[in-house]
Amino acid sequence: MDAGASPPPAAPHDEAARPVVKLTGTLFGVGMGPGEPDYLTVRAMKVLQTAPVLVHFCKKGRRGNGRTIADAVLAPEPAREFPLVYPYTTELHPEHPDYVAALATFYDDAAGQLADHLGAGRDVAILSEGDPFFYGSFMHLWRRLKDRFPVEVVPGVTGMSGCWTRAGTPITWGDDVLTVLPATLPHAALVERLARTDAAVIMKLGRHLPKVRAALAEAGVLERAVYVERGTMAGERVVPLHEKPDDTAPYFSMVLLPGEGRRP
Amino acid sequence: MDAGASPPPAAPHDEAARPVVKLTGTLFGVGMGPGEPDYLTVRAMKVLQTAPVLVHFCKKGRRGNGRTIADAVLAPEPAREFPLVYPYTTELHPEHPDYVAALATFYDDAAGQLADHLGAGRDVAILSEGDPFFYGSFMHLWRRLKDRFPVEVVPGVTGMSGCWTRAGTPITWGDDVLTVLPATLPHAALVERLARTDAAVIMKLGRHLPKVRAALAEAGVLERAVYVERGTMAGERVVPLHEKPDDTAPYFSMVLLPGEGRRP
Repeated sequence: MDAGASPPPAAPHDEAARPVVKLTGTLFGVGMGPGEPDYLTVRAMKVLQTAPVLVHFCKKGRRGNGRTIADAVLAPEPAREFPLVYPYTTELHPEHPDYVAALATFYDDAAGQLADHLGAGRDVAILSEGDPFFYGSFMHLWRRLKDRFPVEVVPGVTGMSGCWTRAGTPITWGDDVLTVLPATLPHAALVERLARTDAAVIMKLGRHLPKVRAALAEAGVLERAVYVERGTMAGERVVPLHEKPDDTAPYFSMVLLPGEGRRP
Repeated sequence: MDAGASPPPAAPHDEAARPVVKLTGTLFGVGMGPGEPDYLTVRAMKVLQTAPVLVHFCKKGRRGNGRTIADAVLAPEPAREFPLVYPYTTELHPEHPDYVAALATFYDDAAGQLADHLGAGRDVAILSEGDPFFYGSFMHLWRRLKDRFPVEVVPGVTGMSGCWTRAGTPITWGDDVLTVLPATLPHAALVERLARTDAAVIMKLGRHLPKVRAALAEAGVLERAVYVERGTMAGERVVPLHEKPDDTAPYFSMVLLPGEGRRP
């Protein structure tokens, strides 16, 4: 930015163009796209192939989804890998004080460890599902490190783009307004926002699907809603929401409400 | 989709995996990303390199922006190129009957020409700025051809992702609601929507910037708004909107209102 607290973001650059002596490493936020490895960008591929420290978030006992996307292009390289294990995922409400405190400690500790690598001159690449600056966990580390180290964010195809692509439906036409809503909103707020937008994407469904379904019905748009599970990944499923018999929804699922705007 | 009028979208596939005898070509909508060629996806690169017919939209007497992005990876290949020249761009209001009629004829004619290629077994790749299913001109050709030919949409990094990346600011945190607004909305509608969202992206600025600026001020959020011009492209400019002295805004510009949600 021309003004403000943040340093200007680094432009994509080749390793060769850098000075030979590097005082600190660069913090990369690498958008991993929606799941299909062919939807990685050229820049993401380059950073994944060259960064000496590869960070991914994961749940205890699981591989992270960001890392799984990289499987198609990266052999396991334990010497480069730096998994960050979330203390909680869905066990506590995100506004529960214990959750907030545990997450803050987790991000503080992780930022400290990554600062050691960066301070020693090693580039650190944080694998971020979708786009790093769109609801990304990367942002919490970026916030703690951005004023001390050079940063390059590599934008990615969002999960929602992957979902509307595989649903085979444009999301916005002409002058449509698009609203991206977390399913965590209260029922009344969902109804009101759904009734007043042309197109919508509802994220973070999880256990909120019954509430989302009711809100769509009350807003009079349930018939247009499409449910997408694991869009662009193995096990992908696309179905009109009103034809989905159950209310289970895994982490990688969302509801799309395609717009119906101007079509000359 | 499991049901509905559209055929299921084709999954990414290698040319080699196809049957040797092809009866018709595939219509590709190729997301070209926000401008920086390194933000093309691996799949987009593959399709650009192999499709025998490359379509781009442009204004009379200009090269199209989608085609310009491809310059970095494609030499000029007149034999493959198929430019589609818009009859109007900003000369008439998009709801003017002459505009609607001229655009409909333009898309009908173009679809007819592309159908000839597809019917003769030639794949056709339509270069789409950003993501093909997000406000894309591609959609108007897709709508006319999708029931007659196989389709593969290659999602892309959106222009807005490119802009918030280069502005160095996350757009949504935690449970933020994001609203994507065309600047063409009336002043009162802009004010109301801006006052009731956590984060916003305002597209299609053009001559609407004075109205947008006034709406942001009335909604009490002007101080947080960031103006981004030609994000990720040559001539990129990022500036807090309240520091931008003039009200000119080219085609490739938008206003971002970053969210301020949960940050453990």
